Amino acid sequence: MPEPRQDRAIRTREEIIRAAAEVFDERGYNGASMREIMKRARVTLGAVYFHFPNKEAIAREVMNSQPDSVLPHLTSRGLQQAVDITLVWSRQLQNDVALRAGVRLAVEQSGLDFRDTSSYEGWEKIFEECLLVAHERGELRDHVSPSTMAGFLVGACTGVQLYSELLYRRSDLTQRTVTMWELLVPGVAVAEVAGQIKVSVRRADALAAIST
Amino acid sequence: MPEPRQDRAIRTREEIIRAAAEVFDERGYNGASMREIMKRARVTLGAVYFHFPNKEAIAREVMNSQPDSVLPHLTSRGLQQAVDITLVWSRQLQNDVALRAGVRLAVEQSGLDFRDTSSYEGWEKIFEECLLVAHERGELRDHVSPSTMAGFLVGACTGVQLYSELLYRRSDLTQRTVTMWELLVPGVAVAEVAGQIKVSVRRADALAAIST
Repeated sequence: MPEPRQDRAIRTREEIIRAAAEVFDERGYNGASMREIMKRARVTLGAVYFHFPNKEAIAREVMNSQPDSVLPHLTSRGLQQAVDITLVWSRQLQNDVALRAGVRLAVEQSGLDFRDTSSYEGWEKIFEECLLVAHERGELRDHVSPSTMAGFLVGACTGVQLYSELLYRRSDLTQRTVTMWELLVPGVAVAEVAGQIKVSVRRADALAAIST
Repeated sequence: MPEPRQDRAIRTREEIIRAAAEVFDERGYNGASMREIMKRARVTLGAVYFHFPNKEAIAREVMNSQPDSVLPHLTSRGLQQAVDITLVWSRQLQNDVALRAGVRLAVEQSGLDFRDTSSYEGWEKIFEECLLVAHERGELRDHVSPSTMAGFLVGACTGVQLYSELLYRRSDLTQRTVTMWELLVPGVAVAEVAGQIKVSVRRADALAAIST
């Protein structure tokens, strides 16, 4: 029985996104062409343009699907969840081409013609939700605002991964993420909670193994 | 009396660097051409190539002169000096085209053919020296390693300015820098010192005014 047309269209679209992520990850936004994305996806150029009007539209979709590969499998809550998100993210950035392409595009756009900050704002909202739960549970010190801290985490994680990428192609990113929390936790969490927060490279490995 | 040849050469070199910073700040590395730098500097293309073999060499020099516009006028020491460096830097990034160009190039190179991490490492060394003094003075908590924290600060500042640039063209960068320290200080400094560290937008303005 032939595949229903709608299913085929969805699959083609996914294939284009997957191929585009590979190309963006390797070549960046300026270096990527619709033609190469088409070849890599093994579809016609017409099929690419049926789903996306231009390269920018594909780039936006790749950027904005970052959290999909990080979030689904975490069961922790509050501050520990914010920690766990960054731990899994740091590991996935080493292994998941779609996430890596999304982050590369999000950073590169500071030098490009288009600006789409929704991927950053998406992460900020995710962190804010964790930290609001942390706040309600009394995990945070009085001076810590969940929304302000969420904004800081997005900036800090962006820069920490960029620096790790430049120096060591991200091989030490998880350790750097652990360091970030070791510096932050004693200042943002109340003493009882600070002692209970689990943050280590080993935990990152375990959480990433569950998520893939 | 004609200007001595050596003085003129030094002045031409500085003029090229100043012009290049403007062009890199506006167009990024890929968008900048030797020809435009030449025009902006009001020198011949021959003069540009006399001083620099290629665009990459100029970009490296612009990247690596970042600290020059931040450091000279600070009198604080230890943790307060690390704070003050970031405060002045956050203000200067709004006003100093050479610093802004250096930071833009340093970020953009993650997507380019050449990699020169010395500007990041220069900042890391500067932070490490402040934090070693802080450590010797007993300002830091036991678990805080000056070198590890210095590496984190470089990454965090890089990302905080990038996020602020994308969202608000850096208009809120000093406030975000203040927020970073409000989150960090209680966790990294011993209690007596944490209460004495001065970090505010007003302080950034005052320090930046002295530095220019």
